[in-house]
Amino acid sequence: MVKVTVWNEHRHEKKNPVVAQNYPNGIHGAIASFLEKEGADVQTATLDEPEHGLTDEVLANTDVLVWWGHIAHNEVSDEVVKKVVQHVLNGMGLIVLHSGHFSKVFKTLMGTSCDLKWREADDRERLWVVDPSHPIVSGIGEYIELDREEMYGEHFDIPAPDELVFLSWFEGGEVFRSGCTYRRGNGKIFYFRPGHETYPTYHNEKIQRVITNAVKWTAPTEHERPVYGNAKPLEEISIK
Amino acid sequence: MVKVTVWNEHRHEKKNPVVAQNYPNGIHGAIASFLEKEGADVQTATLDEPEHGLTDEVLANTDVLVWWGHIAHNEVSDEVVKKVVQHVLNGMGLIVLHSGHFSKVFKTLMGTSCDLKWREADDRERLWVVDPSHPIVSGIGEYIELDREEMYGEHFDIPAPDELVFLSWFEGGEVFRSGCTYRRGNGKIFYFRPGHETYPTYHNEKIQRVITNAVKWTAPTEHERPVYGNAKPLEEISIK
Amino acid sequence: MVKVTVWNEHRHEKKNPVVAQNYPNGIHGAIASFLEKEGADVQTATLDEPEHGLTDEVLANTDVLVWWGHIAHNEVSDEVVKKVVQHVLNGMGLIVLHSGHFSKVFKTLMGTSCDLKWREADDRERLWVVDPSHPIVSGIGEYIELDREEMYGEHFDIPAPDELVFLSWFEGGEVFRSGCTYRRGNGKIFYFRPGHETYPTYHNEKIQRVITNAVKWTAPTEHERPVYGNAKPLEEISIK
Amino acid sequence: MVKVTVWNEHRHEKKNPVVAQNYPNGIHGAIASFLEKEGADVQTATLDEPEHGLTDEVLANTDVLVWWGHIAHNEVSDEVVKKVVQHVLNGMGLIVLHSGHFSKVFKTLMGTSCDLKWREADDRERLWVVDPSHPIVSGIGEYIELDREEMYGEHFDIPAPDELVFLSWFEGGEVFRSGCTYRRGNGKIFYFRPGHETYPTYHNEKIQRVITNAVKWTAPTEHERPVYGNAKPLEEISIK
Repeated sequence: MVKVTVWNEHRHEKKNPVVAQNYPNGIHGAIASFLEKEGADVQTATLDEPEHGLTDEVLANTDVLVWWGHIAHNEVSDEVVKKVVQHVLNGMGLIVLHSGHFSKVFKTLMGTSCDLKWREADDRERLWVVDPSHPIVSGIGEYIELDREEMYGEHFDIPAPDELVFLSWFEGGEVFRSGCTYRRGNGKIFYFRPGHETYPTYHNEKIQRVITNAVKWTAPTEHERPVYGNAKPLEEISIK
Repeated sequence: MVKVTVWNEHRHEKKNPVVAQNYPNGIHGAIASFLEKEGADVQTATLDEPEHGLTDEVLANTDVLVWWGHIAHNEVSDEVVKKVVQHVLNGMGLIVLHSGHFSKVFKTLMGTSCDLKWREADDRERLWVVDPSHPIVSGIGEYIELDREEMYGEHFDIPAPDELVFLSWFEGGEVFRSGCTYRRGNGKIFYFRPGHETYPTYHNEKIQRVITNAVKWTAPTEHERPVYGNAKPLEEISIK
Repeated sequence: MVKVTVWNEHRHEKKNPVVAQNYPNGIHGAIASFLEKEGADVQTATLDEPEHGLTDEVLANTDVLVWWGHIAHNEVSDEVVKKVVQHVLNGMGLIVLHSGHFSKVFKTLMGTSCDLKWREADDRERLWVVDPSHPIVSGIGEYIELDREEMYGEHFDIPAPDELVFLSWFEGGEVFRSGCTYRRGNGKIFYFRPGHETYPTYHNEKIQRVITNAVKWTAPTEHERPVYGNAKPLEEISIK
Repeated sequence: MVKVTVWNEHRHEKKNPVVAQNYPNGIHGAIASFLEKEGADVQTATLDEPEHGLTDEVLANTDVLVWWGHIAHNEVSDEVVKKVVQHVLNGMGLIVLHSGHFSKVFKTLMGTSCDLKWREADDRERLWVVDPSHPIVSGIGEYIELDREEMYGEHFDIPAPDELVFLSWFEGGEVFRSGCTYRRGNGKIFYFRPGHETYPTYHNEKIQRVITNAVKWTAPTEHERPVYGNAKPLEEISIK
């Protein structure tokens, strides 16, 4: 059973009644709920807990970390960011959702600005599957349609993804690389675009299916962190 | 349970006592044996059977096809090649072993010559893991060492792999991209270099583990083949 | 000076007055014209010439081949296809335009069906640059807008491109990977989507700039085709 | 004419007579010398200059930055690192040599530990070309052989390169991804492994040719940094 920790900033829910109505138990609560139904072993953590809820013990018991943040990226302590990044390099899976593109964790792992175009204008979004062989799209069909979402548009300033899984079409004329996988060290990362807080996106069954699939896909591989540093030769070096 | 068909040319075993001693039940028999122990549902097929053992019924009941061929690539009928390629595009997994790099199936799916350097001179080979996050290397450790193997050297005339998993070191001074994944249509492909018939390579436990892992990795994703052809608009086209 | 051969099926222009009006000298003539202005050494070739205009001599004098075909892919002889593919593997650049996605040459080099969704309905198309570092987008700005074009939609059944340069947005609700690079053997390939015959797309200055850039990018690298086959060891093989 | 700045830590040369003998004008001097012969407009900069020689003016006049560092990575100020990274994202080319794999600049742009195995034991190294189509290998032939070099071995903890150009074979039994390209923002990056200070590697003509080729390849594309942030729709959003 995959051990998932769903991390949420959990600020919008407390201030904005629209968000609170969408997610009465917080975005983390909604995500935890459908992952549990699919059989994952889920805990949640939020910004305002001590160490943001991401203690050494919690991280040591996490196979896959799901990350949602937006207005308080800068409040996440550099120490926690460093730990999370190290856990990813050691093999922990990481699923970064929506505005998490600007989180310190994601930007550190990508090495780029992770900037993009955006607009809150009730655009219709259609996420097209461009890699039908990928386990992350299992059971999704050709596309996911969302009646209203925030627009994210290219250029998205990320490294070219190792695998490009979804491309979004937006009513206002933009496109976006919406589902991207990366491998960093022993860890697997999935960035998934949808999920603006003022829309009920995480209640959409196909969106839930993608995140569930991604939990399985990013789960750690049984492989020790490789040995680095000074190395004795495995073969004889010739005398010269 | 993954349904695997192990296809083997099965010619060397009949002519060369060294090969027969390595693989008394054929290379296909050896591979089928360890895959069964790991819980796969395995059948075998060989060149000299009608339709090379790859009837429509067999292919329809195959999740993952393992392919070993060498001296008789040209005897594989174009019709069977076409069917196998179509099944891969439809989602069937394909694992191409060693000299299968020159099979019609692999060359058709790659679009290149798939040529390489080679030498039968008892080189020592060391396959280094270059992607420790990949499920195919689960349980392998940092490298696999084979006391004696045929050498395959760069340049290997393949498309750049979607994922590069293993790199080989050879005693005689060459390197080789030894573990390569590709996605074609709905299907996932893994090319794995080792396995010259005169060596007992497929009895090596780490080699067996890689092939077992690859069976899981190439298994089909639950996704219908996308719809192609003329398409009605999903949004209104403006009048101009 | 790069030696370019522009190949065109040249059938629509003879039958359809709209196409003839767009391209009085043929699509090949229009493309040759702007490439010449940019300093390339251009010749043209068409389907109905002997050997489709692609004799050994012509191919030997071609650094980059531009390919436009649509309704007569099947009339291109397998022998010429084989030669063109071999020249690409040997280092000749190849630019495949629009409906050339279904040409024998492109399908052979890709190894997939190269199928897609399509619609002739005067969709507006917007090609977004997703790799601003790529020489092919030099001087283009953030996107190219085409008032009317044929729609091509995902899933586009190609191998994941080595580099994804353009993504198209279509008014009717679809997206498409519109600018894709591939390397095959010693050769570089660029697929570029726009250019339906009933629209004046190749008169658009930004489209011309992309094709001009692509000619430079796909031009051959000074590198002999590697040596393949049996290879003597470069180091001593130990006695065992 | 490409404007190149060659940056060197320039510490080993002052302390170790072997290094001073290899590079009487510093490693930066040796690299500047052959690049100038090839027609580049070259300046040099070193750690102990004010702002490490990388003032705003110098960076603004740099198309391509070459980086060599080893024992003093930590002395490079975070402010300069930040500026260099920003210039790369804005389009400046970056060539990272040998022990520069552990520089702050490279680690920041990669997002991983960039760790590896190493050994100073006079290994013979052979760098095999695995992408003969790439402009960086122009004029190199099939491989580069270096009689003695420091060994760098896998696992190299980097993101999978966008393009893998060279693979190294080492006498002691290891392999290494020795020539790797990356794109970050508008910038192009090339990592090239050889060049331990105690060996005369940068006097090797093929090594010089690779670095010269890489300068051309990483030179900036004429493309403004894309516009990010809030964006007005390009199409009408339907009323709902």
